[in-house]
Amino acid sequence: MSRDGTPRMDWDRGARTGLPEAVYAEVKTVPQLVAILEDAAARDKALLFTRMEVAQFADLPAEWRARLDHDALSRTAILGTPPALPDVADIAVVAAGLADMPVVGEAVRTLAFCGVRANVIADVGVAGLWRLMERLEDIRAARVVIAVAGMEGALFSVLAGLIAAPVIAVPTSVGRGVAADGHVALHSALASCAPGVVSVNIDNGFGAAQAALRIRTQIEAARLCRDLEGTSG
Amino acid sequence: MSRDGTPRMDWDRGARTGLPEAVYAEVKTVPQLVAILEDAAARDKALLFTRMEVAQFADLPAEWRARLDHDALSRTAILGTPPALPDVADIAVVAAGLADMPVVGEAVRTLAFCGVRANVIADVGVAGLWRLMERLEDIRAARVVIAVAGMEGALFSVLAGLIAAPVIAVPTSVGRGVAADGHVALHSALASCAPGVVSVNIDNGFGAAQAALRIRTQIEAARLCRDLEGTSG
Amino acid sequence: MSRDGTPRMDWDRGARTGLPEAVYAEVKTVPQLVAILEDAAARDKALLFTRMEVAQFADLPAEWRARLDHDALSRTAILGTPPALPDVADIAVVAAGLADMPVVGEAVRTLAFCGVRANVIADVGVAGLWRLMERLEDIRAARVVIAVAGMEGALFSVLAGLIAAPVIAVPTSVGRGVAADGHVALHSALASCAPGVVSVNIDNGFGAAQAALRIRTQIEAARLCRDLEGTSG
Amino acid sequence: MSRDGTPRMDWDRGARTGLPEAVYAEVKTVPQLVAILEDAAARDKALLFTRMEVAQFADLPAEWRARLDHDALSRTAILGTPPALPDVADIAVVAAGLADMPVVGEAVRTLAFCGVRANVIADVGVAGLWRLMERLEDIRAARVVIAVAGMEGALFSVLAGLIAAPVIAVPTSVGRGVAADGHVALHSALASCAPGVVSVNIDNGFGAAQAALRIRTQIEAARLCRDLEGTSG
Amino acid sequence: MSRDGTPRMDWDRGARTGLPEAVYAEVKTVPQLVAILEDAAARDKALLFTRMEVAQFADLPAEWRARLDHDALSRTAILGTPPALPDVADIAVVAAGLADMPVVGEAVRTLAFCGVRANVIADVGVAGLWRLMERLEDIRAARVVIAVAGMEGALFSVLAGLIAAPVIAVPTSVGRGVAADGHVALHSALASCAPGVVSVNIDNGFGAAQAALRIRTQIEAARLCRDLEGTSG
Amino acid sequence: MSRDGTPRMDWDRGARTGLPEAVYAEVKTVPQLVAILEDAAARDKALLFTRMEVAQFADLPAEWRARLDHDALSRTAILGTPPALPDVADIAVVAAGLADMPVVGEAVRTLAFCGVRANVIADVGVAGLWRLMERLEDIRAARVVIAVAGMEGALFSVLAGLIAAPVIAVPTSVGRGVAADGHVALHSALASCAPGVVSVNIDNGFGAAQAALRIRTQIEAARLCRDLEGTSG
Amino acid sequence: MSRDGTPRMDWDRGARTGLPEAVYAEVKTVPQLVAILEDAAARDKALLFTRMEVAQFADLPAEWRARLDHDALSRTAILGTPPALPDVADIAVVAAGLADMPVVGEAVRTLAFCGVRANVIADVGVAGLWRLMERLEDIRAARVVIAVAGMEGALFSVLAGLIAAPVIAVPTSVGRGVAADGHVALHSALASCAPGVVSVNIDNGFGAAQAALRIRTQIEAARLCRDLEGTSG
Amino acid sequence: MSRDGTPRMDWDRGARTGLPEAVYAEVKTVPQLVAILEDAAARDKALLFTRMEVAQFADLPAEWRARLDHDALSRTAILGTPPALPDVADIAVVAAGLADMPVVGEAVRTLAFCGVRANVIADVGVAGLWRLMERLEDIRAARVVIAVAGMEGALFSVLAGLIAAPVIAVPTSVGRGVAADGHVALHSALASCAPGVVSVNIDNGFGAAQAALRIRTQIEAARLCRDLEGTSG
Repeated sequence: MSRDGTPRMDWDRGARTGLPEAVYAEVKTVPQLVAILEDAAARDKALLFTRMEVAQFADLPAEWRARLDHDALSRTAILGTPPALPDVADIAVVAAGLADMPVVGEAVRTLAFCGVRANVIADVGVAGLWRLMERLEDIRAARVVIAVAGMEGALFSVLAGLIAAPVIAVPTSVGRGVAADGHVALHSALASCAPGVVSVNIDNGFGAAQAALRIRTQIEAARLCRDLEGTSG
Repeated sequence: MSRDGTPRMDWDRGARTGLPEAVYAEVKTVPQLVAILEDAAARDKALLFTRMEVAQFADLPAEWRARLDHDALSRTAILGTPPALPDVADIAVVAAGLADMPVVGEAVRTLAFCGVRANVIADVGVAGLWRLMERLEDIRAARVVIAVAGMEGALFSVLAGLIAAPVIAVPTSVGRGVAADGHVALHSALASCAPGVVSVNIDNGFGAAQAALRIRTQIEAARLCRDLEGTSG
Repeated sequence: MSRDGTPRMDWDRGARTGLPEAVYAEVKTVPQLVAILEDAAARDKALLFTRMEVAQFADLPAEWRARLDHDALSRTAILGTPPALPDVADIAVVAAGLADMPVVGEAVRTLAFCGVRANVIADVGVAGLWRLMERLEDIRAARVVIAVAGMEGALFSVLAGLIAAPVIAVPTSVGRGVAADGHVALHSALASCAPGVVSVNIDNGFGAAQAALRIRTQIEAARLCRDLEGTSG
Repeated sequence: MSRDGTPRMDWDRGARTGLPEAVYAEVKTVPQLVAILEDAAARDKALLFTRMEVAQFADLPAEWRARLDHDALSRTAILGTPPALPDVADIAVVAAGLADMPVVGEAVRTLAFCGVRANVIADVGVAGLWRLMERLEDIRAARVVIAVAGMEGALFSVLAGLIAAPVIAVPTSVGRGVAADGHVALHSALASCAPGVVSVNIDNGFGAAQAALRIRTQIEAARLCRDLEGTSG
Repeated sequence: MSRDGTPRMDWDRGARTGLPEAVYAEVKTVPQLVAILEDAAARDKALLFTRMEVAQFADLPAEWRARLDHDALSRTAILGTPPALPDVADIAVVAAGLADMPVVGEAVRTLAFCGVRANVIADVGVAGLWRLMERLEDIRAARVVIAVAGMEGALFSVLAGLIAAPVIAVPTSVGRGVAADGHVALHSALASCAPGVVSVNIDNGFGAAQAALRIRTQIEAARLCRDLEGTSG
Repeated sequence: MSRDGTPRMDWDRGARTGLPEAVYAEVKTVPQLVAILEDAAARDKALLFTRMEVAQFADLPAEWRARLDHDALSRTAILGTPPALPDVADIAVVAAGLADMPVVGEAVRTLAFCGVRANVIADVGVAGLWRLMERLEDIRAARVVIAVAGMEGALFSVLAGLIAAPVIAVPTSVGRGVAADGHVALHSALASCAPGVVSVNIDNGFGAAQAALRIRTQIEAARLCRDLEGTSG
Repeated sequence: MSRDGTPRMDWDRGARTGLPEAVYAEVKTVPQLVAILEDAAARDKALLFTRMEVAQFADLPAEWRARLDHDALSRTAILGTPPALPDVADIAVVAAGLADMPVVGEAVRTLAFCGVRANVIADVGVAGLWRLMERLEDIRAARVVIAVAGMEGALFSVLAGLIAAPVIAVPTSVGRGVAADGHVALHSALASCAPGVVSVNIDNGFGAAQAALRIRTQIEAARLCRDLEGTSG
Repeated sequence: MSRDGTPRMDWDRGARTGLPEAVYAEVKTVPQLVAILEDAAARDKALLFTRMEVAQFADLPAEWRARLDHDALSRTAILGTPPALPDVADIAVVAAGLADMPVVGEAVRTLAFCGVRANVIADVGVAGLWRLMERLEDIRAARVVIAVAGMEGALFSVLAGLIAAPVIAVPTSVGRGVAADGHVALHSALASCAPGVVSVNIDNGFGAAQAALRIRTQIEAARLCRDLEGTSG
């Protein structure tokens, strides 16, 4: 932020890391948000906001509300027109219960903002194992799987034992008593008896999408690289 | 303990709660253990010791070592001859991995001390789900299931979603990093998405066996009571 | 949840585990709750909601409010007519203090939803030990005892030392300072010096009832099995 | 400690607080301990050492070992001759189990060092409530009660609900799993449902004795003061 | 609580422990509070309520509000006329800062309810040591000292090093960051380098007063006993 | 483990998840390890052991020691001949300090066991930022980066801000005081301000390698798939 | 606070420690604040209030609101006219993100209240390392650096590895999941791999400013002392 | 570390931050230490080792043991000849108790390695306040004060309230029960009621010395700068 309060966005991050600039809205004031929006509009940049609650969105000036695509469940807002989504989804977002859907939404909207389609497979918690088994082929079709679960997070281990793709766990703050803040699900992801599960922070659907994008970029690069080799060959 | 150091055992607990007296050996000195043994022998009581490591057993006088049945893996020792076991096991002890076997052993030996046979179904962690599924009929044959698991404890939820019998979780201090002390497995049992899982303390195979015995006593009483009703009817 | 947001209930759980389907209302939106209600009504299923606060109930459409039996203290709501309760209670719910009554209510209503009567023995905290002693015969008449206590949870150990039946501890988030979130009572249940206490999660009256139902099913099965043996004999 | 490593004891604390100087031996080197002993001997002061393990005592020079009264169970050592104990004990030390006896010993030896006799009432854990009830009159005879318990520490609440005297809880690091380090017992003392329980640190028998001495001094002062008033009246 | 919701007060506690019955109001409903008030009025008993916020008091029926002496700062209310206070205070309540005054008030009002006067010595935190030193003679005049402090709780150790009377620490939930919930002050009391400090739960002014009353009763008994001996001598 | 103690390996995991079977040696007895070795040898399977300390390796029978390739620093042992490594490394393992090298070794040896070469870039902690900058091109050449760091784990954020490839953080239990057990580094990975960092459990070099293999498999599949398309095109 | 509720300010602290008196407003009532303001006005003292939210400021009487300079972002208010600021800033306040600005403000306003100018260098989090590098010369110009960061707090280590001046870390409660309360940033400061980082409490911009003032006073004294030596030489 | 295991020291850190290179020995192997020593000797660099226990030092080759100045209490070793110390100490190291002396030693030896003399003022814990008061003038003579304390760490607040110089707290892992690992002392430093206390990690005498050196460098620079101004003036 400059002395007069204008934030300095890292507009070149895309070039450096291949990931788009996003704004964590929760702790920002309306003037800060407007300054960011004006800066983005002036540069003709698309922008993703996470953790923007309905009330916070409602506080924005009407002109900006009209230009933003806000989604209440996932608490995300998008400025500008994201790329069209391909027909095929190569990322699956698998969720244990209804209460996990806001986090699922954050991940799906982040991917969509980057032009990537995700296949949502929800309500497949392990207490009713058949629900997960029924959808297994759909899940196995994905190159990267984002698994979203709260409570005891048993989904992470069961899922990772069944598939070969990378599994990115997103523990959620869903549960009561010892599980209320998401630490049980987080620790279950980290201590999983199934090999190769990785985790992001609690409720961090955005981060999981970013990690999936990092992986997907490598996959696309391999494909492209092969094409180039083929062309030059 | 009386002023001169003789422990006062609660020999009447059996009459009051239906559960046998047992001695947690870990923090006791050799003189204390010998005093307890002499007291039990004088009363002609059988006695179960838990958490008696090999080294501690080796420190006992030879005469007592000869009279005790000590098991290194489960760290239990038994004074006196337990009742013969029935042919049929109505309690199943289900364990996730090899490292859980000491706790499995503590539970099985406690049950055996009380004349109850347990069916051990081990190495069925959910990372290889087929191993659990293969044994499901055996597990469903039990009236009470003791589930033993460390790491992320996903076994508790998967198992409880598959069977109707009471599930007593025994979280174990098996795992590394965040799971090293068993709290992740404990919290997974408590926060399970499957309904009706109950838990005992970390590594407490003895406590799980006691809880199973409490339940089994009620089942036996119902059966007996029905017989008596039938007789009187 | 399907793509359009309709939750997929696990209607066959009853057949699989003997336990009814229930809905944790706290984190669900009104549209989600209505979708669940419509699904249940279409299938003519009874349904239990837990953690439905007065305000959340008030937000439901009037038609559904009229069809639900909502209880403010226990924050439960029931759709459909539960089975008639028998005259005799074979489960006791024992509570330490007034502040534990919401959790007591959740357990009692869950049992009633399944056609099981519970005998409530409240306000018997151990600071006035005579209150517990006065009711001991009533407690000993039960086949399963659910013990509900917050603060230091000393009730669990004292009670389990006095009776032979299974004791399911429900620690509550009642207390101040170190006890505010229920962890002290939970840990007291787990670390109890009395043998065979099992615990569910903090404030989880629903889970305790489910565990009691699992046990009771085994008892009933033994009785029934004996009858069948008698019949066939 | 002066520049050359000689510790500076607070020899005047007795005059200021009425409590004797004591040395926590656990973290001190042999040279430090010898320097302290020499300083005390030169001033003809009696001295109490706490947490002096057998191995540490064995490392001291023979001349000092001969002059110290070391007790292995309580890990205390006394230099000099404490005052003779009176016939009557006005402080009771009540303990839940055998494993608590080292902490009981530390409290009793600290009191004895100050010329105060304590009545030890051990092995009265609440899992067998009759053991406590049998000794209730002995406990009620005391002016101050030190209660020592590990695991879930239910003794503190039960005891404080039965007597009128001050109850000083000493939680001990006795237990396994969640209770291994004494925090459950400590928190149970602090969150007790019985009014007026106070607590010292885990395993701190010395501190409990000091607190009891502070209280006893006020009682003695009241008695003495009354005598003086009587004399002058 | 009886089946119809009437709480069962422990009206005989006074005879058993010498301490009055009190009601923790925070988690109670208006009907529960009114039932307790009616019960007390019917028995002509005085009653102390703790943790009764202004809003909760305002919700009571006017007739009861008129009969209660409610104090907003300490969140206490008294039914009935407490005994007149003596001119002399033999208990001191020493507090570190302004933010500790609600807890100070709870202790002082509890003592007053039992007819005991306390001398409040406030705003003597150790960051300005002279403030404490100035009041040292006043503090030393007390037979029991209740010390109230939040943040790092250094007051407990400094105070206990300066006086001979029993020191009951009341850690408060005053502070920010690591100290926000009072655990730092609590742990400072327990880990104090000054001998004989005892602690009650965080913010528990009521409990500290109860502990002081337990001690004071012994002091009064000694005085009285001496008189009786003198009379009989 | 079967009733007679023979472990049941999940030999088909490779087919299911593409990952090899490995054995966590730390908590296993010599007979258990020998049984596993014999089983593997009988099936002519290669096998990786993790957390096998020098002392544990030394306890194995000489014949097995001769057949195992044990590495003291990484505490890994390999049975059988791993595939030859390719000349090019497409995974980089970046480490902050010397003390992280055992965990680096576990990851590198796991990858090598699967025929994958890793490029180790060590001692590039951010306190001397130039050390990291000097190696940036090497790091950017990798398709997947495993970052290993203890203490405050700042390396994870700095690194992820500089590169586009997936970053798998392995927090290590390197540090003192608040950082001793690795939780600070773990939490830094999870709370990273750089987008898309994922984490495995503390010290879990094996798990990080497995996650990298999951990702690499997808990359290889894309390349292969492209070839097939090209062939068929 | 005197008996009638008037706080006793430590007006002489300035003379003793060289630091001004400040008032932590958060937990104070309006009457307490007014009493403090009146006391300060009567003595003609300037006064700094921290943690005074907009709502609390709005509750003050209009006359006092008019005399106070309140700043909403930093939640500080100043009574009286602070000294004019010098043109040159010798303290730098470096912040990672926008969300840290309230804490930055608290530090800057505290310094200004004491007549010290600070140079704010914001939005230089390490995820975009070039932002920090661009401002390095500005930062190196300072004699003392206050570093403000939440989330994983990697800024502290990177910064301290780049400059020679003292670095005072202020961890902030900015972040989600494991980082929500600021403990990750705090622990990162304490466990920093860069030598000589010191930390204050979470969100404690005031404390960091005080520490910087303590250091600055020594620097000024050295300069002054040198002048005096020169004069006398 | 290069591929062949040679560590890469950051020999230029001195130029960049003004602080010397040091080696944390605890987790390093003998070959690693020898490689570092050879590297330093080849460059003719002096080197400080911290956390080198007696046993680790004894494992080094005799030639290196002869060239190192190892101090058992502080667990430090120095290679090369440090600069001569000035007669005057401008840094004070103030410690609460004997058990804190190893940490005091680490700080003092680190300062000495850099040619800075420290004045040690030990055994001045606040339980005997007069001991601190007696030494107050000595402490006030220092420009920077390092305060070392374990247990409840009350020394930090008392000291900082009495002096104007910067106070760097070093909490130590001295204490039992809740204080055993140093977190209570650490949190007391952070939550201090005295303004401007800063803290380093638990037991981190080295870090405190580094922070003091950073401050001292600024003071020296001011003095030197003034001289230069004077010269040029």
